[in-house]
Formats: sequence, C-alpha cells, structure tokens
Amino acid sequence: MRQIKLKERPDGMPSAKTFQYENVDVPSRNRDEVLLKTLYLSVDPYMRGRMSTGPSYAAPFKVGEPLNGGIVAQVMESETEELKEGDIVTGALPWQEYIVADPNQLRRPEVHGAPVSSALGVLGMPGLTAYFGMYHIGEPKEGETVVVSAAAGAVGSIAGQLAKKRGARVVGIVGSQSKGDYIVNKLGFDEAVNYKEENVSEALKTKCPDGIDVYFENVGGEISDAVWPLLNTFARVPLCGAIAAYNLSAGESDIGLRVQMPFIKSRVKMQGFIVGDFSEHFREAYEVLSPLVKNGELHFEETIHEGFDKVPDAFLGLFSGENVGKQLVKVVEPEQ
Amino acid sequence: MRQIKLKERPDGMPSAKTFQYENVDVPSRNRDEVLLKTLYLSVDPYMRGRMSTGPSYAAPFKVGEPLNGGIVAQVMESETEELKEGDIVTGALPWQEYIVADPNQLRRPEVHGAPVSSALGVLGMPGLTAYFGMYHIGEPKEGETVVVSAAAGAVGSIAGQLAKKRGARVVGIVGSQSKGDYIVNKLGFDEAVNYKEENVSEALKTKCPDGIDVYFENVGGEISDAVWPLLNTFARVPLCGAIAAYNLSAGESDIGLRVQMPFIKSRVKMQGFIVGDFSEHFREAYEVLSPLVKNGELHFEETIHEGFDKVPDAFLGLFSGENVGKQLVKVVEPEQ
Repeated sequence: MRQIKLKERPDGMPSAKTFQYENVDVPSRNRDEVLLKTLYLSVDPYMRGRMSTGPSYAAPFKVGEPLNGGIVAQVMESETEELKEGDIVTGALPWQEYIVADPNQLRRPEVHGAPVSSALGVLGMPGLTAYFGMYHIGEPKEGETVVVSAAAGAVGSIAGQLAKKRGARVVGIVGSQSKGDYIVNKLGFDEAVNYKEENVSEALKTKCPDGIDVYFENVGGEISDAVWPLLNTFARVPLCGAIAAYNLSAGESDIGLRVQMPFIKSRVKMQGFIVGDFSEHFREAYEVLSPLVKNGELHFEETIHEGFDKVPDAFLGLFSGENVGKQLVKVVEPEQ
Repeated sequence: MRQIKLKERPDGMPSAKTFQYENVDVPSRNRDEVLLKTLYLSVDPYMRGRMSTGPSYAAPFKVGEPLNGGIVAQVMESETEELKEGDIVTGALPWQEYIVADPNQLRRPEVHGAPVSSALGVLGMPGLTAYFGMYHIGEPKEGETVVVSAAAGAVGSIAGQLAKKRGARVVGIVGSQSKGDYIVNKLGFDEAVNYKEENVSEALKTKCPDGIDVYFENVGGEISDAVWPLLNTFARVPLCGAIAAYNLSAGESDIGLRVQMPFIKSRVKMQGFIVGDFSEHFREAYEVLSPLVKNGELHFEETIHEGFDKVPDAFLGLFSGENVGKQLVKVVEPEQ
C-alpha cells in the first residue's frame, strides 16, 4: 500500500517536493485494533501550519513520518465488539491506503442520509467551524450585514448560509465569477465580490450600504484591510483563518497579518471600547475606585500645567509623552 | 476673558497653529443658567480625533469654535435651586475661563476627599476607562501576566494597579527611566519596559516568561506588534487607544495600526477561535446542522479528487483557490 510522508518542511508555498509517496506493507494489527481502508481523505488549509515548526494549536507534523488528518474509512477486519467489517468510521488518521487503528480513535459519521464524505465537510470540522464562528461569535441578527471571505470554501459556504438563516444580508468575497455565481444562485448569498476582478474596498462600500456588522474572517491580508474601516459599531469578527499568511516564508513581510495569525493561534479576544459603552455600570465603578483612592490603595499622579495660557502646551505634551498620570491644566484656584 | 478655539484642523501632529486664543466678553446668562469659573481643564489624547473630520465616536470639533472637554469649575453666580455660589461642578464644557452652563450639563464631582482635580482623572473618565477595560474586558486572574502600554499615563497607571489588585503579575511599557521607576516603585508594577531604550520584543520575552494573558492596549504600532506573538491562549486585549496612530497625516502609512483605529471607533470584538474550543457544544451543532442538510436547506459542495495519488494536488489546490466547498480526496469506493 501507499502512504504519504512529509518529505521536507516548506518555506513559503508547499510544492510536490513537500510530499513523499512510499510503498510499504499493510501494517499488522493487534486483536483490539481494526484494519481500515481509506475511502475519503480531507485536505484542509490548517494543515499548512502543521507543516512548519513553531507554536500553533496543533503539534507540527514530523519530517519523514506520514501526514494525517480527517479520514472516512471502512472497516476491513475487526475482532472488536465496537466495530464490524463494512462499518464506516471517521477520525484523525494517517494518510495511508490502509490504516490500523484503535476503535477509541474512531467514531461513526453522523451524516443522517447525506453522503459519508460530508463527515469531513458540512457535518464535520468545517461545518462545525462555520457554526461556532457564526452563531457563537458572530451572532448575526435580523437585518444585519454579514461579510464572509473565502465564501465558496468549505467553511465560508456554510457560514454564509447560516447567517442567511438568521435573517442577515450576506455578502461573500470569492476569487472567481463562477464561485460568485455559486454562492448567490445556489447558496442564496445576497451579493458576491470577486477580489480578483473588483476593487474590494469600493465593491464592499457599494454592496454593504449600511456597513458591516459581522465579518467572518478566513483570509487576512489586503482583503481584510478593506473590511476594517467598514465595520459598524459593535461589529463582531470571528477570526477563523488567514490563508493569505499561511504560505509566507520566514523572510517575507506579514504586513496586515500581524494580528490574525497570533490571535487564531491563541484564540485571543480583542474588543474595542470607549468608556461610555459602560454607562450603566458607572455607579459600580465609582463604588470600587473611590474607597481605593480614599485608603491610598490606588495611586494617581496629576501632571498639572498652571494657567489658561498653558492649554495648548499641555495638549501637545500628551503626544511627546511628557506627562505622568493625568495631564491637566489648573486654570485658577477655587475661591474659599 | 479668554477662550481657545480650533484655528485649523491639524494634518499630522497638532502644533501651536492648531489653537487660537481669543479675548471675548464673559457671556451673559439666563436665570436658569449658572456662571462658572474654570478651575481645572483636562487634556486627553482622544481629543486629537475630534480635531479631524471623518467618522469617530465623538463629533468633530468645529473650526473657529471653542474646543471643549472635561472641566472642573466653581459656581460664581446662580439663581437656580440645584447649585449655589461656591459649589464645585464638573462636565464637558468649552475651553474658556468663564462658562455659562445649564445645571443639567453639570454634576458634582464624587471625589470622596481626594482633590477635586481627580474628577478629571482617577475618579473621572480615565479612571473609569481603566476600570471597564481591565475588569470588564481584560478580566485578569490571579497569577496571570498583564501588560499595559502607556503605563505611566492617566489610564494605564490605574489599569495596571487594578490588575495588581486581582493578583496578576503586571508589566508596564513606558517611554523613560523615571516613568519606569514610578510605576514599579510607587504603583507596584512588577516590571517596566522602556521602549525608548530597550528592544520591546526581547524585554517582554524576558519579563513575561509565562507569556501575556491580558494586553491593555493604549498605543498601537510597533510596540503592539511586539506583544501579539507573546499572547497566551485565550488572552484578552482591551483596545483602549492607539496614540501612535492619532497623528498620522492622511498620506502616511498606517502599517500595524489597521485594526486598532477602526476597532476602537466601532468597538469591534474580534476573537480568534478553533473548533475544538467548543467541544462541549458539538452535540448542539449537529442537532442544528443535520436537519438543515437533510431537508436540503443547507447546501454543501464537495470538490473531490479521485485517487490516493491526487492527495498533494488536492492539498496544493487549497492555496490557489481551485476548490468550491470542501476539498476531498476519494481514495476508493466503499465495498458493498
């Protein structure tokens, strides 16, 4: 049988040199293991990250060992109670034509009449990713505008449809006319933007006249830079992927991608805010801060310029870092 | 009396030319208004945004009209029930030595024995900003590492101390040795990084050996770029300010600041995620997705490459955008 090993770590875009096909014997199994035949093998963008070293949420693949990922397989031999010959199973498994696995590594695909391959797509990792990103983070509301990048992809195509089911207006960003036609005519997106043909910034302004409330981020880079200024107040950005960054080589610039990659790796939550958003909690804040100030537990410094003629100097000093603590102008002493 | 008007909108850094002092008569008041004498006048970085046009959370200042902001003042004349001569009040008021105001625009500073000027600082807008950013968004836990930029400033100095009170290890980024000494020796920060003298990235790696759990963002730019890679899983980033961006002129690059400014303006929440973070909700997701697939309400496409020898092509195709929907390799038909 054949297996596929990681031959060398790609620097930049992977190529045929990344992969090594090898002919090996079908592995032997213990009595508590099953022999599987691979039916469907999933390839996913996140795997690119595992081909490099460095911190990520998944351990790097090892050079000279088989790659692995989502697979749907059929049981060929089993003496276990859990599985019998002919059963269809799925799991994270090595890229081989035949696989020996522990039944605990496997589950039965829950596809409810859909093709078993959907256990690797809409009813598997990509579908769940779309679901949680859109419904648990994006949370689109009726009448809001949702933009999805990589909108014809495994995740984006589901994410956009889920947003439609919440009554949102959905605009997809894609890389070809045929993908644009697909998401509008088949999936029911309201609009498509073809980033290879259109000025994304101008197209989004036209197609999102009320701004953007949810941006489901799959790509990063210049496409996302066109989105940021159009986000509405209290917009949400589920950061799912940044495919524009995955194939940058070590020396290449990551301008515009400085946030996405580490934020996905570490599942960071970033939230812009101004103090007025919390006006209902002002009382609570004063009740915490005031005793701390009174007891001397919270220190504060005031850099005070004296006299009304010092206002511009005080203001300009903010940007040269001259102040410690609060920069103020004392115009006059209170009268007694 | 004197007032300070916006003379011209600054392009880039404001300067003395931005401001126009003018001698005008003390305004006359109606019987339901009070005459105030300005005691303390606050200058704050956010005011720079109001000097430009363009969308923001606060309306732009008008050229030729008085600037305004937080002021602490004393009542000189009042025939109202609410206020009497000599009372100390605070509010958002014009930059003038004497001000006529409606009592409804004013409130009494709640300073609990602290100097009245603290109504513009620790017990005013900057203190509340630190409180909500740190406690409602950052939510530092005992033993976590918190980094605060502009740590000796009005907001940062309070934010860092509030984090200490939750038992976090707190590292402040400042622009001078004396500010570093101040935050460590006076405010109780654990460490200071002087960005004008130190390599911020290296210093943070040394001083945050367990990574960073909360980054209280006041500055943007290269300092923040040094923080992103050090954020721990599930880190939080309260985006309070981006002072490095405020004085960029129209033509200047905003590299590294593309996210902060629009995210503050619109109070965007961005959250990196991977599907496994939601493993406790997988059941819920399948229960929503499966009927939609079964009823044909959720479309999905599979781009299927046939044969185990097509795995590298299928994988590489992900990055050239060849696939619609889920990219798969069908290795073999299941046996019947």
